[in-house]
Amino acid sequence: MNIQEMAQKAKKAGIRLSATPSEVRNKALGNIVDSLHQYQSTILTANQKDMANAQAEALSAPLLKRLKFDASKLQEACEGLVSLRQLPDPVGQTLSATELDQGLELYQVSCPIGVIGVIFESRPDALVQIASLCLKSANAVLLKGGREAAHTNRILADIISDAAVQAGIPEGWMGLMETRDDVQELLELDRTIDLIIPRGSNAFVKHIMDNTRIPVLGHADGICHVYIDKKADLNMACRITIDSKCQYVSVCNAAETLLVHIDVAPTFLPDIQSALADHGVEMRGCLRTAALIDVSPATEKDWQTEYLDHIISIKIVDNLNQAIDHINQYGSGHTDVIVTQDSQRAQTFMRQVDTADVMVNCSSRFSDGFRYGLGAEVGISTNKIHARGPVGMEGLMIYQWRLMGKGHVVADYAGPASKSFTHKPIRPEGQ
Amino acid sequence: MNIQEMAQKAKKAGIRLSATPSEVRNKALGNIVDSLHQYQSTILTANQKDMANAQAEALSAPLLKRLKFDASKLQEACEGLVSLRQLPDPVGQTLSATELDQGLELYQVSCPIGVIGVIFESRPDALVQIASLCLKSANAVLLKGGREAAHTNRILADIISDAAVQAGIPEGWMGLMETRDDVQELLELDRTIDLIIPRGSNAFVKHIMDNTRIPVLGHADGICHVYIDKKADLNMACRITIDSKCQYVSVCNAAETLLVHIDVAPTFLPDIQSALADHGVEMRGCLRTAALIDVSPATEKDWQTEYLDHIISIKIVDNLNQAIDHINQYGSGHTDVIVTQDSQRAQTFMRQVDTADVMVNCSSRFSDGFRYGLGAEVGISTNKIHARGPVGMEGLMIYQWRLMGKGHVVADYAGPASKSFTHKPIRPEGQ
Repeated sequence: MNIQEMAQKAKKAGIRLSATPSEVRNKALGNIVDSLHQYQSTILTANQKDMANAQAEALSAPLLKRLKFDASKLQEACEGLVSLRQLPDPVGQTLSATELDQGLELYQVSCPIGVIGVIFESRPDALVQIASLCLKSANAVLLKGGREAAHTNRILADIISDAAVQAGIPEGWMGLMETRDDVQELLELDRTIDLIIPRGSNAFVKHIMDNTRIPVLGHADGICHVYIDKKADLNMACRITIDSKCQYVSVCNAAETLLVHIDVAPTFLPDIQSALADHGVEMRGCLRTAALIDVSPATEKDWQTEYLDHIISIKIVDNLNQAIDHINQYGSGHTDVIVTQDSQRAQTFMRQVDTADVMVNCSSRFSDGFRYGLGAEVGISTNKIHARGPVGMEGLMIYQWRLMGKGHVVADYAGPASKSFTHKPIRPEGQ
Repeated sequence: MNIQEMAQKAKKAGIRLSATPSEVRNKALGNIVDSLHQYQSTILTANQKDMANAQAEALSAPLLKRLKFDASKLQEACEGLVSLRQLPDPVGQTLSATELDQGLELYQVSCPIGVIGVIFESRPDALVQIASLCLKSANAVLLKGGREAAHTNRILADIISDAAVQAGIPEGWMGLMETRDDVQELLELDRTIDLIIPRGSNAFVKHIMDNTRIPVLGHADGICHVYIDKKADLNMACRITIDSKCQYVSVCNAAETLLVHIDVAPTFLPDIQSALADHGVEMRGCLRTAALIDVSPATEKDWQTEYLDHIISIKIVDNLNQAIDHINQYGSGHTDVIVTQDSQRAQTFMRQVDTADVMVNCSSRFSDGFRYGLGAEVGISTNKIHARGPVGMEGLMIYQWRLMGKGHVVADYAGPASKSFTHKPIRPEGQ
């Protein structure tokens, strides 16, 4: 089956899937857990094959770590499925209800988007997670995982797809793509695929965004800033800077640039320099920073770089507005932090920094679906429409307007002596 | 000023605009009304110039009608501004609030999208409407109107822009583009413009959608269907078909195709034939339709055509599923109608027809922001993400996550003996 056929099949299946009752989708999630347990040894064998190939190809240690799918990873994935099953059904929620006129009622009802394309790098657990999120939300899904994980992904996809079909989910609801050419084809199917979610490196996501007309939900860069205001508690500022930069350097919500108000720079910079040095962080600073502490010079390029490493760029600013302007110019609209005891200045920062997640007196590292309590994370988006920041299952949903009449026609509401609309909110039952 | 500069200026102004209090934006709307009244004669003179040029170029009567901006159109536009001013502020609404841990509070707060590009054909009233919607929602806006309305648009844009600035809105919040080259440049500014809203003909909107990487909110085709089910009340079916097709033929929510269940075709088709003929509608039908009533043959092309005229295509289907499949294959996901007395069959139709607006026992012509009571209509969208169907001001909004802590860091929530999250909903004040 080629990708176009697979996508057509997914589209048709998606339409039937969107009309399945909650119980069928929840039963499918239960079946998947049972099946994953039942075929555990087959899955682990497939992963060992992928691991052996990867080792033979001398893949890096972090890549190998992400590729590994052992009994404990499987157990974790199954626990995720069990808690997903317990979440309320996102489909068929009434978002608004209005009486337009007597007997003419308008409902705005949540429904799945349709067919989601998901393209991710090595981690096989991502396949389980995203396929189950799509299933719960009644979306069809086409998946493409990393080449390194081909055997693991194949067996996982077969198990998940079949277990769901046995519970009554329409066949074709899930498809697995296996080559780069498949992905290229997918990116061209803007009439069939409704949304693409890429998960992986910066360059990888940029490539997807630049090569399709299908809407993409995700983020490429994560150039996050910590701004230490003149009204900051400097002990707190130090703790937050260290956590934002060092708690996990290789992730998108780690800080890359530290902005320091000139009034506190002489006190703060020596302290943070020693704390960063203790964590093995290389510091690059503007000229004024270099006049206060020992740093290598930061260039224009530094302000534009997501290091994902033990490196930080430091700049002194004259006032709050300069901090805001710097972030709006160089930031990626992902996560930005202000440390200040002045709530008015915090308000100004929050309102004027054009970013998905703004943190006041806490670490940039909190910007994450699990920490936000979203239940399940689809991804982190720096888009300006649809969904922004950590995106839960609602990012896979849209709505349909449903108008129910008793023979109402527009001609009756036009011209002289016409009827008029009541536009009365309809209260949910039981309220 | 070239378009890139104009867009940069709008982006900067947009950031300040997003932080303006409601009162400033409402005062600006009031100033605009005053200014429009004050400069009424200048506006009408400019429009007369455009009208004279258009007549000299022998523009069609409907185009001339849309171009005309007289005292009564001005009065209507001002009334729209007054009611817009009374709407609640869409900015700064708390959409959700969660305590992540003691003293660590997460708020999801509505905010403007940023810079909106609006490209519309002749109607100058669209300029007033969309500029004021952007202002109310704290978005910066770049506008391009029809060449025919150049004088009217220029004076309207100057008045609106200045009146707002006098109320304290940042200069540059609104820009007017005047040439086709300007639009071409705009379409390339995907780093500055956040959303494009095109208003105009099918071909015009398609051109925009095909030539930009900026998200587009709108619709090209409006191929709407009316399906007469075997359980339909046939008198009602006749009234709804006539209203959907004939009440205003040249608009996107008018019906183009009539699907009839085979069981009721012999009774229904002769009745609807005579009613459609009374309204001067040309009928094109499938073979089975042609066997029952006198119609010209419909070709594959007919099912794909938005006539926007007194023409309708008619097809007999064997069952509900065939109707659903036809609509999902040929429809444009705009508005589709079922006429049936069977609520179970209506449910199946609503859930499986992949369309923005689904009507049960009422006319497709109701699909409209004013009729839905949205307060103000940004446009009608057939997108599958962000906003769908008639879009009110919420289509110009996104949200920002705001996390407020007291020095919280992620390291405290990792590893053994770590703190855990509470994830407790925070109740709105006063509840």
